[in-house]
Amino acid sequence: MNNMLDYIQANGDLKKFDSRELKELCNDIRSFLIESVSKTGGHLASNLGVVELTVAVHRVFDLPGDKLIFDVGHQSYVHKLLTGRKDRFDKLRQFGGISGFPKRSESEFDAFDTGHSSTSVSAALGMARARDLNGEKHNIIAILGDGALTGGEIYESLNDAGRTKTPLILILNDNNMSISRNVGAMSKHLRNIRISRYYFKSKKKISGFLRRVPLAGTPVRRIIESIKASIRKRVLPTTLFDELGFKYIGPMNGHDINALIDCLEYAKSEKKPVIIHACTIKGMGYAPAQKNPSAFHGVGKFDPLTGELLPGQGSYSSRFGETIVRLAKYNPKVCAITCAMPDGTGLTEFSKQFRDRFFDVGIAEQHGVTLAAGMAAAGMIPVIPLYSTFLQRSFDQVLHDVCLQNLHVVFPIDRAGLVGADGETHQGVYDISFLSCMPNMTVLAPSSFEQLDEMLTYAVERHRGPIAIRYPRGGTQSPYPSGQFEINKAYINRKGCDVSIITSGRMIASAAEIAKKLEDHNISAEITELPTVHPINVSAVIAAAMKTGFVITLEDNVKSGGFGEHIAEILIENSVDCRFKAFGFPNEPIVHGTVADLDKKYGVDADTVTKYIIKVNNSLANCSIAK
Amino acid sequence: MNNMLDYIQANGDLKKFDSRELKELCNDIRSFLIESVSKTGGHLASNLGVVELTVAVHRVFDLPGDKLIFDVGHQSYVHKLLTGRKDRFDKLRQFGGISGFPKRSESEFDAFDTGHSSTSVSAALGMARARDLNGEKHNIIAILGDGALTGGEIYESLNDAGRTKTPLILILNDNNMSISRNVGAMSKHLRNIRISRYYFKSKKKISGFLRRVPLAGTPVRRIIESIKASIRKRVLPTTLFDELGFKYIGPMNGHDINALIDCLEYAKSEKKPVIIHACTIKGMGYAPAQKNPSAFHGVGKFDPLTGELLPGQGSYSSRFGETIVRLAKYNPKVCAITCAMPDGTGLTEFSKQFRDRFFDVGIAEQHGVTLAAGMAAAGMIPVIPLYSTFLQRSFDQVLHDVCLQNLHVVFPIDRAGLVGADGETHQGVYDISFLSCMPNMTVLAPSSFEQLDEMLTYAVERHRGPIAIRYPRGGTQSPYPSGQFEINKAYINRKGCDVSIITSGRMIASAAEIAKKLEDHNISAEITELPTVHPINVSAVIAAAMKTGFVITLEDNVKSGGFGEHIAEILIENSVDCRFKAFGFPNEPIVHGTVADLDKKYGVDADTVTKYIIKVNNSLANCSIAK
Repeated sequence: MNNMLDYIQANGDLKKFDSRELKELCNDIRSFLIESVSKTGGHLASNLGVVELTVAVHRVFDLPGDKLIFDVGHQSYVHKLLTGRKDRFDKLRQFGGISGFPKRSESEFDAFDTGHSSTSVSAALGMARARDLNGEKHNIIAILGDGALTGGEIYESLNDAGRTKTPLILILNDNNMSISRNVGAMSKHLRNIRISRYYFKSKKKISGFLRRVPLAGTPVRRIIESIKASIRKRVLPTTLFDELGFKYIGPMNGHDINALIDCLEYAKSEKKPVIIHACTIKGMGYAPAQKNPSAFHGVGKFDPLTGELLPGQGSYSSRFGETIVRLAKYNPKVCAITCAMPDGTGLTEFSKQFRDRFFDVGIAEQHGVTLAAGMAAAGMIPVIPLYSTFLQRSFDQVLHDVCLQNLHVVFPIDRAGLVGADGETHQGVYDISFLSCMPNMTVLAPSSFEQLDEMLTYAVERHRGPIAIRYPRGGTQSPYPSGQFEINKAYINRKGCDVSIITSGRMIASAAEIAKKLEDHNISAEITELPTVHPINVSAVIAAAMKTGFVITLEDNVKSGGFGEHIAEILIENSVDCRFKAFGFPNEPIVHGTVADLDKKYGVDADTVTKYIIKVNNSLANCSIAK
Repeated sequence: MNNMLDYIQANGDLKKFDSRELKELCNDIRSFLIESVSKTGGHLASNLGVVELTVAVHRVFDLPGDKLIFDVGHQSYVHKLLTGRKDRFDKLRQFGGISGFPKRSESEFDAFDTGHSSTSVSAALGMARARDLNGEKHNIIAILGDGALTGGEIYESLNDAGRTKTPLILILNDNNMSISRNVGAMSKHLRNIRISRYYFKSKKKISGFLRRVPLAGTPVRRIIESIKASIRKRVLPTTLFDELGFKYIGPMNGHDINALIDCLEYAKSEKKPVIIHACTIKGMGYAPAQKNPSAFHGVGKFDPLTGELLPGQGSYSSRFGETIVRLAKYNPKVCAITCAMPDGTGLTEFSKQFRDRFFDVGIAEQHGVTLAAGMAAAGMIPVIPLYSTFLQRSFDQVLHDVCLQNLHVVFPIDRAGLVGADGETHQGVYDISFLSCMPNMTVLAPSSFEQLDEMLTYAVERHRGPIAIRYPRGGTQSPYPSGQFEINKAYINRKGCDVSIITSGRMIASAAEIAKKLEDHNISAEITELPTVHPINVSAVIAAAMKTGFVITLEDNVKSGGFGEHIAEILIENSVDCRFKAFGFPNEPIVHGTVADLDKKYGVDADTVTKYIIKVNNSLANCSIAK
């Protein structure tokens, strides 16, 4: 068989491959990934970086008996290819297709579902402890990037694992990147390790030289040896990992398949936690990705020959980026904080124009939020854009450090609501629920770029206290001209008398579609837009309900604890006599697929809502006829 | 003036004190604290440990221009004494009195509100960056315990601060304890530092010796110097803190006031981040607290002479502790994880009887939860009791690592609902809201010790998937005999026809009180107990509402996203014609005081609810008369 990857698919075994064949396999995998991801989109650069690492793990260990955990998980494509999922790559990250992340429900070879950074060592240690208690002997391996080392949980777990004497193999995939270039003292530490290895060489040289000094030789050498011993004992271990109790191996070339195999074989024989420091190149083997790894981190479709990316659409992210630059120009108090995503959140331009007011803290949402609180307590106006899914990593900090103290921190929440292809672990459908239980918090949701501008201006310049602005991935916009934004104000986008649709943000476009469909059935829908999602404008909601006696709420969030429930409680507590139905996402993991696929699957699409309204409207009509 | 502390109160200045007077002041502070806290209860041992540290900071720095931040914050009593709050210590942690934690709203000397561990460096760095941007020059000091070093956020912030060249003074108060004995590799690292300092002494000795060797002296010494330089450059810094970019000073005696002052003066002159490693004794100067610092961490009233603690009441915590031991005896899969609180959560006995199945991970809730998920994925049944307020630190991990994967992890939530004296930062009034938006999550709430037993047995032995059991601080129990617990089952505790009170947990006792009060007004209340708080038993709720047409929900949680809102939505969506009112806590910081004080302040007490029911009932009666 010419293609080694096809051989693997057929035979499921790379253990018989010799060194040359393994290298060929790596080449084949790279070619396949570039070709395949160019058609589907996905995480390319990170997967190109771990080809040899993954192949080496599969060569040395026996999965699924041995357990392999991917930190973050978007770098698991090679692993998926090696475990019988090649033929499903044409549906990667698509509705009904395979996930872009490890999924226990997808394959027994996927030991643990991941999606967010810095959890792998905790999960691996849990499995190791279970193994020991059960008297089992299998190996547990975690692959984590150097970006993961900026997240606090990894340190919590290293601290715990380091004093455990149980075998555990961590592979640190060090490419000096998280999504963008990595930051922080730890990153510098890794660089120092890479450089400092010459120390050991120079040590050898000195020792050799001393042995060649005949006169002073013996007694002085003894002194030196004693210094060295004392150093070794007290000062060495040199790396933070040794210091935390790990056996450190490295740094090594993470693209040298033979060296990796030797190293993993050695690690397998160790009886304590081991960390292998492998240096890799993000995007390895594909020039456009190597040149611009951040752009090729998560890509849409592209031309595999030239690496040309399809031009991006206008998005809320980029609009945020433009507006915050404008606001920062006029107000020197405005600072921006990012958690390792300057590009993804639209802060690239800000970081260039206001270098001293821009802070990239790494994948460290907890620290990022408390840092913002500290700045706000000292009179600055920190703006910390986060994807909704990542904001949830700082729940305690938002609540304690910002909300309880009523500090003026602005939280632009990007990718709020459905995110699509990234699926379960990245859906931003929880933020209304978890933010609206916090004291002093205000939550806004724009339905157009202009509204985002006005909200951001309001949030920065006029609001006092914590405020969040949640906007969707992409650029879905309202078809209605939005009036000048005012806090807590409700906007009647469309007048009607049969049903009141109360909604905001991305769902305004759906509401418009519903209203249009209803026209064909002679049902006239009123659309009330509440750009201030929390707290709710009570009188507007009551007025809308009283007008039509039939309220529909529609939200890009789970129903539980969401916008609709808050409105339900207002209506019933005020004894408003009306029909009511909340549309939002159910209490189950929201899978991957396009936003349209998912709206439909979970019954939040225009068709489903329209049908529901028609049905209820007919029954109400029948009632009133009966009366 | 005899008492130095009184002098401070009068004059607000200890800068003129000489060394002897400062020591006297420290003694006076200790005497006052022991006497005062014996009457009010509070955090004693930790405050006795930081007397000299706090006095030294006040001596060297100029507050409030200079900013002092306390990590966790329960060790701020000495600071409060030195900033004019001595006379308010008789009301410490009491309703209307001063808080046991720093509060910006209480004093300009309190720079940042804290309550949870590991946030201080983030906040301090935020203030430092604001200072630099504003061209200001004041000092920023954070005092943090070694326990804080087990929490991930501290590492995120050290990683960020370490590469910043801005001045920042961290004082590591190392007593080898968090609340209980500290754990983990980092703790070992600190111990190593304490021990290893002899290396520097031996280094000096060797160098002196070499200078006395005439023959070999010069050239060999040069070689040795070059080795040492290379070592210093590449291998030293020896501590993790140097490694992260801090100037490390220590370890030093944290009770030597003169040394501390010298050291802080030096730190003040540094132009980069400094960390001072001060070794202290928790409970210093009070024998009972030194002997048993964990018991004297947070105490109730005690006898100051003997240190005898008043005997504790039976509590849900201790009942949990007994039951989990019983379950673990019969099921070898049961493991327990604690985040630095083996005693507080009732796991002491478990930790003794099942050493190999007990894991204390430090103040590391994120890691603790993912560790549990890893163990569950490998077939164990991990039980991780956490105070409600600390559970919120692992929101993302509960959602991702446990709920999305539907793993069988048991979360006993201690101190759910009001906690009383600890106040704003410790109230457990958010968990129903943030847990019920998570997929696959079940939440239970016992109203008696027997029910807790049954729930725990169910959760461990029969349930599959994530499950939480929330119980209050203390031992409030239902006056009704509780039937055998069944999942999702509703229990009619009391029959009635005028109003349906739907509630659970601690509030069952309140509901009983309300029902009794209502009897005097000829109003008959039905009480429906829903021990399964989430998901809600829909048909039971509808039946209760249909029976009386008037529903009251009562919960030990904020209203927003809580139990009551879920019920409101069910009722209105099902077009149940009824009056409805949810009682729960409002969207504002819930202050400190007794549970009774706070129920009353926030209108969740039996009196307020009773009055409301009477009022509505009368108006309904009038309506029906009018009809």
